[in-house]
Amino acid sequence: MIPAGGVGTRLWPLSRASAPKFLHDLTGSGTTLIRGTYERLAPLTGEHVMVVTGASHGEAVREQIPELDDADLVLEPEPKDSAAAICLAAAILHRRNPDTIMGSFAADQVIAPVELFQEAVREAVYTAAASKIVTIGIRPTHPSTGFGYIRRGAKLPVSGAPNAHQVAEFVEKPAAPVAEQYVASGDYLWNAGMFVAPVSLMLSHLEQAEPELYAGLMEIAAAWDTPDRDTTMARVWPQLPKTAVDYAVAEPAAAAGDVAVIPGEFTWDDVGDFAAIARLNPAAHEESMTVLGEKARVYSDESSGVVVSDTQRVVALIGIENIVVVDTPDALLVTTTDHAQSVKRAVEALQAKGDSDVL
Amino acid sequence: MIPAGGVGTRLWPLSRASAPKFLHDLTGSGTTLIRGTYERLAPLTGEHVMVVTGASHGEAVREQIPELDDADLVLEPEPKDSAAAICLAAAILHRRNPDTIMGSFAADQVIAPVELFQEAVREAVYTAAASKIVTIGIRPTHPSTGFGYIRRGAKLPVSGAPNAHQVAEFVEKPAAPVAEQYVASGDYLWNAGMFVAPVSLMLSHLEQAEPELYAGLMEIAAAWDTPDRDTTMARVWPQLPKTAVDYAVAEPAAAAGDVAVIPGEFTWDDVGDFAAIARLNPAAHEESMTVLGEKARVYSDESSGVVVSDTQRVVALIGIENIVVVDTPDALLVTTTDHAQSVKRAVEALQAKGDSDVL
Repeated sequence: MIPAGGVGTRLWPLSRASAPKFLHDLTGSGTTLIRGTYERLAPLTGEHVMVVTGASHGEAVREQIPELDDADLVLEPEPKDSAAAICLAAAILHRRNPDTIMGSFAADQVIAPVELFQEAVREAVYTAAASKIVTIGIRPTHPSTGFGYIRRGAKLPVSGAPNAHQVAEFVEKPAAPVAEQYVASGDYLWNAGMFVAPVSLMLSHLEQAEPELYAGLMEIAAAWDTPDRDTTMARVWPQLPKTAVDYAVAEPAAAAGDVAVIPGEFTWDDVGDFAAIARLNPAAHEESMTVLGEKARVYSDESSGVVVSDTQRVVALIGIENIVVVDTPDALLVTTTDHAQSVKRAVEALQAKGDSDVL
Repeated sequence: MIPAGGVGTRLWPLSRASAPKFLHDLTGSGTTLIRGTYERLAPLTGEHVMVVTGASHGEAVREQIPELDDADLVLEPEPKDSAAAICLAAAILHRRNPDTIMGSFAADQVIAPVELFQEAVREAVYTAAASKIVTIGIRPTHPSTGFGYIRRGAKLPVSGAPNAHQVAEFVEKPAAPVAEQYVASGDYLWNAGMFVAPVSLMLSHLEQAEPELYAGLMEIAAAWDTPDRDTTMARVWPQLPKTAVDYAVAEPAAAAGDVAVIPGEFTWDDVGDFAAIARLNPAAHEESMTVLGEKARVYSDESSGVVVSDTQRVVALIGIENIVVVDTPDALLVTTTDHAQSVKRAVEALQAKGDSDVL
């Protein structure tokens, strides 16, 4: 299951409500992030792939994944946060086969090499089959304060999953000194929101933590593979409570000892801002200047950084290091990689100023 | 006479071959530089204004100065440097009335206050009437290495021109320590290329220094106010030698003791680069950010500098001090005021790369 949500505000003006992050090729690979996610999973799942996304992105997702059946594309009439999105998929799959093991992998992440990823997923499936909700945690490469962490507990004796451990707890984004302790201890992994789980176990935790949400999702799921799908969805979805899957399922399950973790030894990036894009794309067209965009015409002099060109305009850069220029038909961003996180604040300010036509 | 030439390469991509500097409003005054030049002169000259410009700018100049007669608009079929441009005007005026005193004031300069300018011109006219070629020199505000200098000689006893001095010599753009000596001495003024002179005296120096150019210009002038104007211009102009009025007239005249100078006490800027634009336009729309462009939509955060917007795009700037952003439909420049002089190099590089469609 691929949840394809989130606007990617820190990647404005490239990523925006009408063209969110997962619909862009941010690594110069020639494919969008959601297509890359699908292709990474297809060897493991065959045709058994489901996508949950906003109704306005249905057409774009179908174009990216023509292999997808209509019954496997969940279109949210409005955003209801991750618990509703992910658990509706679980409920639909449970209705089709209560023994299903489901994995959830966000549409906008960059992972390599694919073999190490698939190995981790395989271990996670074996562990899920032993009745666990199994997160795949990322081995931290630095003491990031931008991610939540997973504290590993005791090793689990699961056949086929030599690296499976109990999850002791999930912890929120830490302050810098705490993050350093986490990384030094070796017991903490980044929480990348990836997990594999028996749908029945997820739903039983959801039922306990969020009975109202559970009831609504089960009602939609019961109608899903019938002619009543659309009318039921339209009637029930808007009433659902908004909450994150972490609170509705993962944390209660961890407290009950039902969560395991497999360490992912692959490199992982959630392409959170333009600094990530500079990092993920080695300088190509010009010396020390990363250029994204097939029609880009960039002249760079005593400058370094990244240019993302979504126009055919000539872009001339002189004398600025670590610059970020994002050139789109109706909006231009100029900043530095050091300020990449402040882009979110700009988007909020533009919203407040009434410039939402470009958001 | 207003020579309206020069592309203003350091102001690319705002100023370019098809829309040179003098056709822009670079000070936020609401009028173009050439219209501002005309309005500064009209109170002194009445209708007696002539413009010399490239053939491709004829329409734009007529739009800017509808008061101009066709006989007073000289359109150069191709650029031939300043001696041909300025001395053709002198030759035409000489043909109409050999006693004419002509002033030459470039179309792309910013001057204030207009009263001090007009006072200097009045003194220059009195001095020219005493048979001098009279430059108006600018009192230096700093030891610039970007301008040529005029060394003042003895005071001249001219009635109506209490500040007139002989010119001892013209000197080329100096190195920094030399420029500092010049400014400290008080005997040097910036050469802004402004002068007032009897056309007969100019032409007699031209005849001696550049006989071939003189003969060609006299031939065009003889046909100018006749039906043969266009055919003569088309036949003779392309053959004229290219040289600057400094070499062809001013320097030989100075050596002969025929040049005087009036100090201009007004502020003067030739708007040579985007640093000048930042300087001439106090920050308006956003704190410490100068914004030019009526339709500009600029968001600025922890940034300072200048944005020139020739589009309706939203421009968001985050975390760069002294930035220069020039946003036009087909080209974008991003640099800093410290690198404003390097824009010329960028234009040369784009030319070499074959991107001349945006130059």
